[in-house]
Amino acid sequence: MKLAGMGEDALVAALLRGLPDGPEVIRGPGDDCAVIGAPRAKTWRLLKTDCVIETVHFLPGENPRRIGWKALARAISDIAAMGGRPEHALVTLALPGSETLKRATGIYAGLRQCAKAYGVTIVGGETARSPGPLFLSIALTGSVERRHCVFRSGGMPGDLLFVTGRLGGSIKGRHLTFRPRVEQAQWLAGHLRVHAMMDLSDGLGTDLPRLALASGCGCHIEPSALPLHAGCTAKQALSDGEDYELLFAIPPRDATRLRTLWSRKFPSLGLTEIGALTPLSPLPPGPRRAGARHGYDHFA
Amino acid sequence: MKLAGMGEDALVAALLRGLPDGPEVIRGPGDDCAVIGAPRAKTWRLLKTDCVIETVHFLPGENPRRIGWKALARAISDIAAMGGRPEHALVTLALPGSETLKRATGIYAGLRQCAKAYGVTIVGGETARSPGPLFLSIALTGSVERRHCVFRSGGMPGDLLFVTGRLGGSIKGRHLTFRPRVEQAQWLAGHLRVHAMMDLSDGLGTDLPRLALASGCGCHIEPSALPLHAGCTAKQALSDGEDYELLFAIPPRDATRLRTLWSRKFPSLGLTEIGALTPLSPLPPGPRRAGARHGYDHFA
Repeated sequence: MKLAGMGEDALVAALLRGLPDGPEVIRGPGDDCAVIGAPRAKTWRLLKTDCVIETVHFLPGENPRRIGWKALARAISDIAAMGGRPEHALVTLALPGSETLKRATGIYAGLRQCAKAYGVTIVGGETARSPGPLFLSIALTGSVERRHCVFRSGGMPGDLLFVTGRLGGSIKGRHLTFRPRVEQAQWLAGHLRVHAMMDLSDGLGTDLPRLALASGCGCHIEPSALPLHAGCTAKQALSDGEDYELLFAIPPRDATRLRTLWSRKFPSLGLTEIGALTPLSPLPPGPRRAGARHGYDHFA
Repeated sequence: MKLAGMGEDALVAALLRGLPDGPEVIRGPGDDCAVIGAPRAKTWRLLKTDCVIETVHFLPGENPRRIGWKALARAISDIAAMGGRPEHALVTLALPGSETLKRATGIYAGLRQCAKAYGVTIVGGETARSPGPLFLSIALTGSVERRHCVFRSGGMPGDLLFVTGRLGGSIKGRHLTFRPRVEQAQWLAGHLRVHAMMDLSDGLGTDLPRLALASGCGCHIEPSALPLHAGCTAKQALSDGEDYELLFAIPPRDATRLRTLWSRKFPSLGLTEIGALTPLSPLPPGPRRAGARHGYDHFA
């Protein structure tokens, strides 16, 4: 079977099926980060790797600073999605020999700028020659207080779904310059009963079903309620991907408190209720159920 | 300046120059692993990333199991070189869409086999589409007791240099199937005063000057003393690379004890004294000084 015919989730599931558990593994594959630590420890460690590849995640002529920023910011966004704090990064950069030192240092300038903005220390870097496109992979560690660690899997039927900011149209440039929601996610995890959370990297239409599935729930959304970037349609908000906003689920009784506290704490960043988690029942799929395949999929 | 004209060490130095120190960074760039922890902690954490790329580190038709084994074993070898124990791995696999599921699962079979052999838990995997060659990057964590952590930088003039096993000719296949020297490195760090250690990935001719430089020393080796794989020359032992044997420096007074204990503990693995660290003096380079550019360099 050719990979081009498989969805990314199906491929990852096939590859990781039946991996043995190891010591101190709180959460292995299937969430925004791996979570490591003793079950009752005060703090857990977070691990994430994420890569960007020329022509897939950015175009060949792109400003190298923005490539560096994006690569690290993507990994930071995943640490944030657990309620965590990013800490130490390792950089793997594979470059064609025809690239210039100026371009490589430009990429590192973007990495350094992002690291500084989010309190990350770059503790190592590897370079290799790429016979193909430029390839940049980040390994990032973080930490989270155990009682504030938020998984994708804790959602309950009836929980309300919220997203930060606006969705859609990131391809116009935002996917290279976005600011991961570290402060917002930590604040949410520390001040509210957030049952489940993730960052929106592949589009709401792909990511929300992942959260619902991990929580053993269904979901419905109100397309008319989606917070859209100027000039975008609901379809784009569902499928464009690379929004890097937070998607999270809270119990309905906390919604009023969330809205009040949020507008005081983050007056310039929108917060929108977009739907709810539902019981996982064999309902026929309808227009109010988020489709599973509306977002970006590497192999679909 | 085109990267093809730069050495890899010069490129990495240019990219990482002046990176700010961060909290809990015992060792940033420049050793086999990054080392993280409080200065007086009982245990330190180790972080390493390493990648293999089709046509650079293996050929397109290669057995996928061996690709997976090699990718993880390389990172394990770096954890070993600090005296550490490998723990948790994340896998980043970028594949052309034309690849098959069978090939991807074959790579994971090799990863799993290596993980099992060395007590590593794979805690996550990412897949992406590659518009070029197959790219496989491993992020690996480990731990080491502080008092047993061995850096490249602790060598002293007069220290004797030893290597495990035999060198040269790994291109014939050993570079895909080697066994990282985790047990040996831990035993050395626990039983002897190992001043400096690293694993030989780019060839003794490149790697030994790195260890000497990190230790503020010069070095000399006896080419006739090099332990060679059958059919290999001393030049190959210096320059072929990918031996993944240990290179380490110990004080001369410990040499007899090392030889005695080693031959009892590891009777089937050779151990060879190959030279010594020297004071860093402006001696003219001669045939007894290891050349700096005999090994594999990605950009040279």
